[in-house]
Amino acid sequence: MQVSVEVEPQSLPADTFDANCPTRTVLDNVTSRWAVLVLWALLDGTMRFSDLRRRVGGVSEKMLAQTLQRLERDGFVHRLAHPVIPPRVDYSLTPLGEPAARQIAGLTSWLEGQLPAVLAARASYDANRAAGASR
Amino acid sequence: MQVSVEVEPQSLPADTFDANCPTRTVLDNVTSRWAVLVLWALLDGTMRFSDLRRRVGGVSEKMLAQTLQRLERDGFVHRLAHPVIPPRVDYSLTPLGEPAARQIAGLTSWLEGQLPAVLAARASYDANRAAGASR
Repeated sequence: MQVSVEVEPQSLPADTFDANCPTRTVLDNVTSRWAVLVLWALLDGTMRFSDLRRRVGGVSEKMLAQTLQRLERDGFVHRLAHPVIPPRVDYSLTPLGEPAARQIAGLTSWLEGQLPAVLAARASYDANRAAGASR
Repeated sequence: MQVSVEVEPQSLPADTFDANCPTRTVLDNVTSRWAVLVLWALLDGTMRFSDLRRRVGGVSEKMLAQTLQRLERDGFVHRLAHPVIPPRVDYSLTPLGEPAARQIAGLTSWLEGQLPAVLAARASYDANRAAGASR
């Protein structure tokens, strides 16, 4: 007798260490450089596309649009297009996006505080390397 | 009269939203896909290169070496090469790396728990898109 078994991959426990776990793609979307900054910026409240572009230094229009689209698709960001001329689009955090943004902000602001220690570590590493190379 | 002023960029307050702030490079190094998984894995304790390679599914030897080198240079990971044959190299978290790894692990394990919600959001987004395209 042959038994047909329906497998629901989503019901397997997530394991990010497994290369095939879909959490990998979520992690990539949330921790990309621009996503980190967009999520952090949106903690201050709803923002228009142009506001976000100004806030997130160095982001191109294309990268910002792509980042927002991925965050919207994954359920972290809500996009609201107002039917007005000129067009106006607002972005805000969803109930899923807010805790994500809080954790991202916690990590990033902590990293800002550690910058002197990191720069000191880099200088020491580079000096040791240079000393090793000249020996 | 011309006055020469010495500027110490490191003494400026860090601002990750500024494209020129060096925190950007630290953030990139810490939140790269492989760095996230390496930091998380090292929370369990010291690991050899080959152990890490097995633990972090899908990482190539080259990417793992590059990731570890960046984390070592930034002061998050300690590398200890034992003078034995065959060579043995141990990696562990530094006092700076441990809080970084804890925050990364917090975010990533939270994301694992939200995977069903994210996959549902994706399915809904894609269905809306498909409906819009066929209209």
